[in-house]
Amino acid sequence: MVFKTNATIAQFGGKLLKLSHDSKVTKTPMDVNVFIPSSSTKNIPVLLYLSGLTCTPNNATEKSFLAYFAAKYGFAVVFPDTSPRGADIAGENESWDFGTGAGFYVDATQEPWKNNYQMYSYVHGELIDALTEAYTELDFKNISITGHSMGGMGALVGYFKQPRAYKAVSAFAPIANPSVVPWGEKNFGGYLGADKSLWAEYDPTELIKNYKGDDSATILIHQGLDDPFYEKELKPQNLVEAGKNYKGGIELKLVEKYDHSYFFISSFVEEHAIHHAKYLGLI
Amino acid sequence: MVFKTNATIAQFGGKLLKLSHDSKVTKTPMDVNVFIPSSSTKNIPVLLYLSGLTCTPNNATEKSFLAYFAAKYGFAVVFPDTSPRGADIAGENESWDFGTGAGFYVDATQEPWKNNYQMYSYVHGELIDALTEAYTELDFKNISITGHSMGGMGALVGYFKQPRAYKAVSAFAPIANPSVVPWGEKNFGGYLGADKSLWAEYDPTELIKNYKGDDSATILIHQGLDDPFYEKELKPQNLVEAGKNYKGGIELKLVEKYDHSYFFISSFVEEHAIHHAKYLGLI
Repeated sequence: MVFKTNATIAQFGGKLLKLSHDSKVTKTPMDVNVFIPSSSTKNIPVLLYLSGLTCTPNNATEKSFLAYFAAKYGFAVVFPDTSPRGADIAGENESWDFGTGAGFYVDATQEPWKNNYQMYSYVHGELIDALTEAYTELDFKNISITGHSMGGMGALVGYFKQPRAYKAVSAFAPIANPSVVPWGEKNFGGYLGADKSLWAEYDPTELIKNYKGDDSATILIHQGLDDPFYEKELKPQNLVEAGKNYKGGIELKLVEKYDHSYFFISSFVEEHAIHHAKYLGLI
Repeated sequence: MVFKTNATIAQFGGKLLKLSHDSKVTKTPMDVNVFIPSSSTKNIPVLLYLSGLTCTPNNATEKSFLAYFAAKYGFAVVFPDTSPRGADIAGENESWDFGTGAGFYVDATQEPWKNNYQMYSYVHGELIDALTEAYTELDFKNISITGHSMGGMGALVGYFKQPRAYKAVSAFAPIANPSVVPWGEKNFGGYLGADKSLWAEYDPTELIKNYKGDDSATILIHQGLDDPFYEKELKPQNLVEAGKNYKGGIELKLVEKYDHSYFFISSFVEEHAIHHAKYLGLI
């Protein structure tokens, strides 16, 4: 067992596992939380939930209430961390929206980040492979993906770059077009350098233009209209515009009065759970 | 308006208000959170949720998921704080289970606490009166009460001491017989002094013995069997034993594997919400 179990907590009739393991990809210890419903003892489908800036695996675990619906519909949820921690890189902890807690789910190509900040390969590769081996009751061939803000971006990127990996995608207030917003410029510039052709490899709005995979699954996105980051950093309409030819359609739900917080996420998590349960074959 | 609105947050189709006001009873500023569902514009029933040791109004607001079910069934939820804060009493912040965050929902009779630590009168009196005046859409004549741990004790005490105030009571892992456990001895001793007849005034197991009010509403209690405080501090069986003549019955549900955390609370909050919705006339 590559994972150390730090806690096993009863929740919604199932169990929440707080795990850690030594990542070869990030060269740091990594925490991950996994909720496993009691609904079945084998072939349990999985939803991968990617968190936003500053979050550890615990924030969404405690505040999203996703596990309630995962228990109800019968899928597991994996909550990875948002960056390596303790990589001991100069500047890593200087800002809340770059470095620690802000891996942006990319594989960095630039010094001093590239040795550790390989979150794309970690989340979509090493982590899934390790969990597949350790938790044989989970069916990582029947997996779907979602996330919030930076994690919504990471979910969309993973879905577009690996068309056969994920059955469906949804996102809460995703950074939908990072190449043209301050958060993207700061992080892509830092991790990927000045060459914007590489930025496009991690930009949902760029990726959907050339997407060649199965496009039958509707993409569900919620965006609060009182979200302070909406117009400056998130720009979901750019994704909708770029994805006009995506057959399943992008269902962008603009919700009045909602902000960017976990109160927003938990208010719509039921709709996302039903979305994924459908594509995971559970309803 | 006696309340200052620090935040209005959209949640589950309704709104979460983060409020503060100057309490005449505690002589300190007090925070309180109120969730108001969108289901109605008048006569909205209310559930009062009393939190456990160390909690502010935010913990249960963020982690209990009670608001999801309040929105579903159409009641408001009031989340008071657990003690005065900043009363500037020597020793107030020395331990996590006495003083700040640990008001035990009693009216202190002892120095130096009695000037501020009047949480029974605050929660069941001043706070409800002030909210009644400020939020006329809420019907505080149709109110029910619940809580966790110290707050489960506070809920039971309020219900037994004021039979006409609350339609029903439930509790998550309540301190059911504080007079005979270390937490009760520490706090009742500190706030109420050595005279144990006064302790009995705030002990659910003592109060139920002489309860003369309407006893038709079932009392619902969940208790996790992996709760580290279960046997030493909580003792719900003492309440069940003392309440043999309570007609509605005490439904004590001992749940295997569950602990004392918000994961335990949120796992059973649906059952408690349905319990209260029933007695509030909503289902």
